[in-house]
Amino acid sequence: MRRWMRTGWLALALLTAGAVGAVAQEEALLGAVDETLEAVEDPLEAIQLNLDIVLTLVAAFLVFFMQAGFAMVESGFTRAKNAVNIMMKNLMDFSIGSLAFFIVGFGLMFGAGNGWFGTTNFLLSGADWSGGEWNFPFLIFQTVFAGTAATIVSGAMAERTKFTGYLAYSVFICAFIYPIFGSWAWGGLLDGGGWLEGLDFLDFAGSTVVHSVGGWLALAGAMVVGPRLGKYGPDKKPRAIPGHSITLGALGVFILWFGWFGFNPGSHTAGDGTLGRIAVTTNLSAAAGAIAAMFTAWGLFKKPDGSMALNGALAGLVGITAGCDVVSGMGAIAIGLVSGVLVVFSVLFIDRVLKVDDPVGAVSVHGVCGAWGTLAIGLFGLEEGLFYGNGAGQLGIQALGVLAGFVWAFGTGLVLFYAIKKTIGLRVSPEEEALGLDIGEHGMEAYSGFQIFTTQ
Amino acid sequence: MRRWMRTGWLALALLTAGAVGAVAQEEALLGAVDETLEAVEDPLEAIQLNLDIVLTLVAAFLVFFMQAGFAMVESGFTRAKNAVNIMMKNLMDFSIGSLAFFIVGFGLMFGAGNGWFGTTNFLLSGADWSGGEWNFPFLIFQTVFAGTAATIVSGAMAERTKFTGYLAYSVFICAFIYPIFGSWAWGGLLDGGGWLEGLDFLDFAGSTVVHSVGGWLALAGAMVVGPRLGKYGPDKKPRAIPGHSITLGALGVFILWFGWFGFNPGSHTAGDGTLGRIAVTTNLSAAAGAIAAMFTAWGLFKKPDGSMALNGALAGLVGITAGCDVVSGMGAIAIGLVSGVLVVFSVLFIDRVLKVDDPVGAVSVHGVCGAWGTLAIGLFGLEEGLFYGNGAGQLGIQALGVLAGFVWAFGTGLVLFYAIKKTIGLRVSPEEEALGLDIGEHGMEAYSGFQIFTTQ
Amino acid sequence: MRRWMRTGWLALALLTAGAVGAVAQEEALLGAVDETLEAVEDPLEAIQLNLDIVLTLVAAFLVFFMQAGFAMVESGFTRAKNAVNIMMKNLMDFSIGSLAFFIVGFGLMFGAGNGWFGTTNFLLSGADWSGGEWNFPFLIFQTVFAGTAATIVSGAMAERTKFTGYLAYSVFICAFIYPIFGSWAWGGLLDGGGWLEGLDFLDFAGSTVVHSVGGWLALAGAMVVGPRLGKYGPDKKPRAIPGHSITLGALGVFILWFGWFGFNPGSHTAGDGTLGRIAVTTNLSAAAGAIAAMFTAWGLFKKPDGSMALNGALAGLVGITAGCDVVSGMGAIAIGLVSGVLVVFSVLFIDRVLKVDDPVGAVSVHGVCGAWGTLAIGLFGLEEGLFYGNGAGQLGIQALGVLAGFVWAFGTGLVLFYAIKKTIGLRVSPEEEALGLDIGEHGMEAYSGFQIFTTQ
Repeated sequence: MRRWMRTGWLALALLTAGAVGAVAQEEALLGAVDETLEAVEDPLEAIQLNLDIVLTLVAAFLVFFMQAGFAMVESGFTRAKNAVNIMMKNLMDFSIGSLAFFIVGFGLMFGAGNGWFGTTNFLLSGADWSGGEWNFPFLIFQTVFAGTAATIVSGAMAERTKFTGYLAYSVFICAFIYPIFGSWAWGGLLDGGGWLEGLDFLDFAGSTVVHSVGGWLALAGAMVVGPRLGKYGPDKKPRAIPGHSITLGALGVFILWFGWFGFNPGSHTAGDGTLGRIAVTTNLSAAAGAIAAMFTAWGLFKKPDGSMALNGALAGLVGITAGCDVVSGMGAIAIGLVSGVLVVFSVLFIDRVLKVDDPVGAVSVHGVCGAWGTLAIGLFGLEEGLFYGNGAGQLGIQALGVLAGFVWAFGTGLVLFYAIKKTIGLRVSPEEEALGLDIGEHGMEAYSGFQIFTTQ
Repeated sequence: MRRWMRTGWLALALLTAGAVGAVAQEEALLGAVDETLEAVEDPLEAIQLNLDIVLTLVAAFLVFFMQAGFAMVESGFTRAKNAVNIMMKNLMDFSIGSLAFFIVGFGLMFGAGNGWFGTTNFLLSGADWSGGEWNFPFLIFQTVFAGTAATIVSGAMAERTKFTGYLAYSVFICAFIYPIFGSWAWGGLLDGGGWLEGLDFLDFAGSTVVHSVGGWLALAGAMVVGPRLGKYGPDKKPRAIPGHSITLGALGVFILWFGWFGFNPGSHTAGDGTLGRIAVTTNLSAAAGAIAAMFTAWGLFKKPDGSMALNGALAGLVGITAGCDVVSGMGAIAIGLVSGVLVVFSVLFIDRVLKVDDPVGAVSVHGVCGAWGTLAIGLFGLEEGLFYGNGAGQLGIQALGVLAGFVWAFGTGLVLFYAIKKTIGLRVSPEEEALGLDIGEHGMEAYSGFQIFTTQ
Repeated sequence: MRRWMRTGWLALALLTAGAVGAVAQEEALLGAVDETLEAVEDPLEAIQLNLDIVLTLVAAFLVFFMQAGFAMVESGFTRAKNAVNIMMKNLMDFSIGSLAFFIVGFGLMFGAGNGWFGTTNFLLSGADWSGGEWNFPFLIFQTVFAGTAATIVSGAMAERTKFTGYLAYSVFICAFIYPIFGSWAWGGLLDGGGWLEGLDFLDFAGSTVVHSVGGWLALAGAMVVGPRLGKYGPDKKPRAIPGHSITLGALGVFILWFGWFGFNPGSHTAGDGTLGRIAVTTNLSAAAGAIAAMFTAWGLFKKPDGSMALNGALAGLVGITAGCDVVSGMGAIAIGLVSGVLVVFSVLFIDRVLKVDDPVGAVSVHGVCGAWGTLAIGLFGLEEGLFYGNGAGQLGIQALGVLAGFVWAFGTGLVLFYAIKKTIGLRVSPEEEALGLDIGEHGMEAYSGFQIFTTQ
């Protein structure tokens, strides 16, 4: 259709040219060729956009699948008597989070705003529901990110948190806490930009925006709800409470690693060669993290502990998330190695020194290694093949972003969990905790028919 | 190559033009520019087709993975002593189904036909096995859909069905029952169209074509095979028989939700922006379904039951499948909420009133919510942003399709399962059922080394 | 930008043409139209390349996920007391392998070489870490392939291998053994080609390069480490040692089948219609393998054994891997059927005649069926719709490649495992083996709280 319009125009131009002479004819010729190119460029751009959409959606689906990974890690590393409760918390924080982010969160995070939060696009208003547009793939990609931040908290508060209290928390993180911080660092994807973006704070796929925010909320939650019964004896020394299925825990880690190939490359939201480099750095850091954590634990405990190695892989993944697009392969390995060492010492520090009971190590993996990974851009980030000229300057900006993430998430987390504690209640009774939350909260067992030591 | 041919032609045209004057020259110029555009349009279309193929294949792979989800849900929600049997049934219905659909089913469903079934393309005859073509991606996508319909039945007949009888059933559903109904509603994708298509019956990704057909077959199977021993006491009251692994069941639900992102968006079979909107409505309905089922069960049983919430997510997914491309976000939430409430009451109705023993709730999830989702297009479907002008008319057409699905699937199912019962046999002996089908049918245990109460 | 340069050039040409006459003007016109086409062809090629990259990456992610499949299959088919050890071996062989392949292996396999190994591109030197390039997607795709070869060995050596010895092995396979053989058959993807490529040896996705190499290394490892305690009694007859979770084993098989849709289609490394045909043949062979193995086992043991059917699906997948792009649907079914029969007899032969203890059947699935699939190209491969004109000739070349794979992998495997045995040590103490490697090697249990018969 477009072609015939152009052809008609060209014919007219040429007829005119015949009358007014050679100069006009040349111009007509030039115009025709230009129009030809333009007529082709639109479909070219449309096809590349379609490819970007397909890539972003496939990545979003992989990130969604991380929910299964979290559910397996968190239940595998805790006791059988609380497994149903963990499944329900993971199912519900994503379900409630999906609605809350659609209704409120997406608008707060990406709506046109004031640098501190957005004020438009609630309920995806403005979207054309009769046709396909870029905003739908973007919404689903951002929804599964919000869901990831939400579900991190579940593990740290496992085995003693009241189900209704947890449901209340789920609403607030996806509707307010995560989106508002997100708008500071990423809001400018659609809008003029948040205040951290204005300072050139870099966090490509969310070491801070997603993982540290989730991790510091988890820290607040674990502190407010208090340690599990029997975790700290009368001598205040921590006791190990082993998980009920390391196979499910390991399956969860493999699923999370798999999903991270959506998380990091997908954050590019474009289908091109940059994706490959991000996949390579992501994989190298995860591998280095697993190796470093295993050897660190081996040195400390004389045995290559399974949970530490698995957490090391996750630590490497969290660590590389901020800088996966700006570091080299060796930089990625370095970030992963440090993450793997760091996660072991952080788990011990939180367990033994802070005496905060985090059953799955969520604060160390997501909070601490997220902060490390964000800072690491100042150390290992490359610009046109060289380390950041303003390395020290960038490091300072990164530190500011990390600090802002901690203050916001830990601060709002303390307020939120105290408020829940004083109203709905945050913790089950000691009797219910001893019996297990599966019976107490949900009236069912996870492993009916199996002989399980419930005293455990 | 094409370029040089065109150039030569253009040179000739211009030389001629020089002889016969300005008018001919203008025509030659027009022709040359048009040919340029045409030479570009072919590769453009080829690349978009390649993208459509990649999208369709990735979606098919995700739908294949739903087989793992069904296997986990069905085994997790039943007893440990029958877990091997469930794995084998799931493995085999897909394996047998893949061959049967390739040899017979695909031709019946998509071959050139008479409005009631196709009669060409058996064994994919006509396909060029030496090169890449669109029919291969389409075949694998349709094969995994047929496999989904087939495997739904496995759960409803779990824990008492003879393995040989189940194998016989697998052949018939993928070779005949599913493809023939499919040709009524979808056959026109390749051909002139089936009779339901002719009436403008809408079922985008198969709430009726796949899920209700599977669900009503499951109902027929569960009725013919009868309830499990001990399910209904002498007083005819149902007894709960808890599943052996809610973690595996929940993992299965997460896998199914993940796979549904292939099922619904993939049914668009084109890589463009429409996919995003389908992913958004699919996710919102699943989330709403989980929430609604949890609160419904909470109200009825005073506790937020885990199995009901998990089935609620599946109910929301089944419900949105028909209309995922024509409803808004709020419409999707409404469909999901109704699905979540409906599945709980349907499970209770089938269990307590119909007294049909469906161990995993397959009839309610797939049959009932599939019917609901198909009807819901008449209520929530949008056309150019408005509700269907002919809302009532469309609702009637949808109801006709739902009814046709029920009559066909339940009817052929009754005949098939009775025929198997009278020939091969459909049910194991009471002794074998008490001992477990793993030992009886397969000579092995699922959990060797674990202490399990086999009386359970 | 390019457009304006061309336009300027065209204007100049036309102005000149006005001076020197009609012939020059015609040439200018021709040139302008040609340049238009060229200006469009670059973006067209760039978009297709982007699509190729997206396809290759998504495929690589699916292949990565096969690590979870191997972990589930290997742990599910062995005893609960060694499950942590299997998780750790799977996690670590991929982690160590990822670094080793990045640092050394990729260069040996794909660097410019001498037909026997590559000598450039170590540490991906030469890659531009500031931008997106094809070499990154290719590296990650090849890394996950190397990881697959590495992890095959884990299952065959399960339940008695010393962890440190296994770590040492992991370095060598991904750094040297796999890449050197790979360079013989596939090195020419980047370079002039290895010696097997020069002979037109065909192995599309690695029946020999990946699976047989892994399988023969597994055979060497299982022979050197010796059978598990109690596997062969004083009468030398084999005893069945049942696995601890057939549900996890089956989940693993479904995950592997899913991942194989990345393995085989992804090996095309281009996003076009050929992918669909590869997906179809892959699925048909897997289905046929499962069915054939089930019926074979049924005939031999009078019951449809679950592990054999599951291994049959894997056998069909391994068998089709070499020829998935050159056989028809019926050819794929034939390859799968033979694979399914073969794997059952091979498992029995290795177990009863060779008396090599391979707990999960890895040698039969990957080694034997990989060899069969490679040979099968000579029987079922099509060229332009016809069987290979040089069928016998091709069969000979395929046999040579299969033999080379066996000699190389089994030979280097024997040397490597003997060297490890004499230095680090390859086997745990009998006391540790009886207690389980989870406690002995890692100081933890897989299923804390469950009552498990450790004598088992």
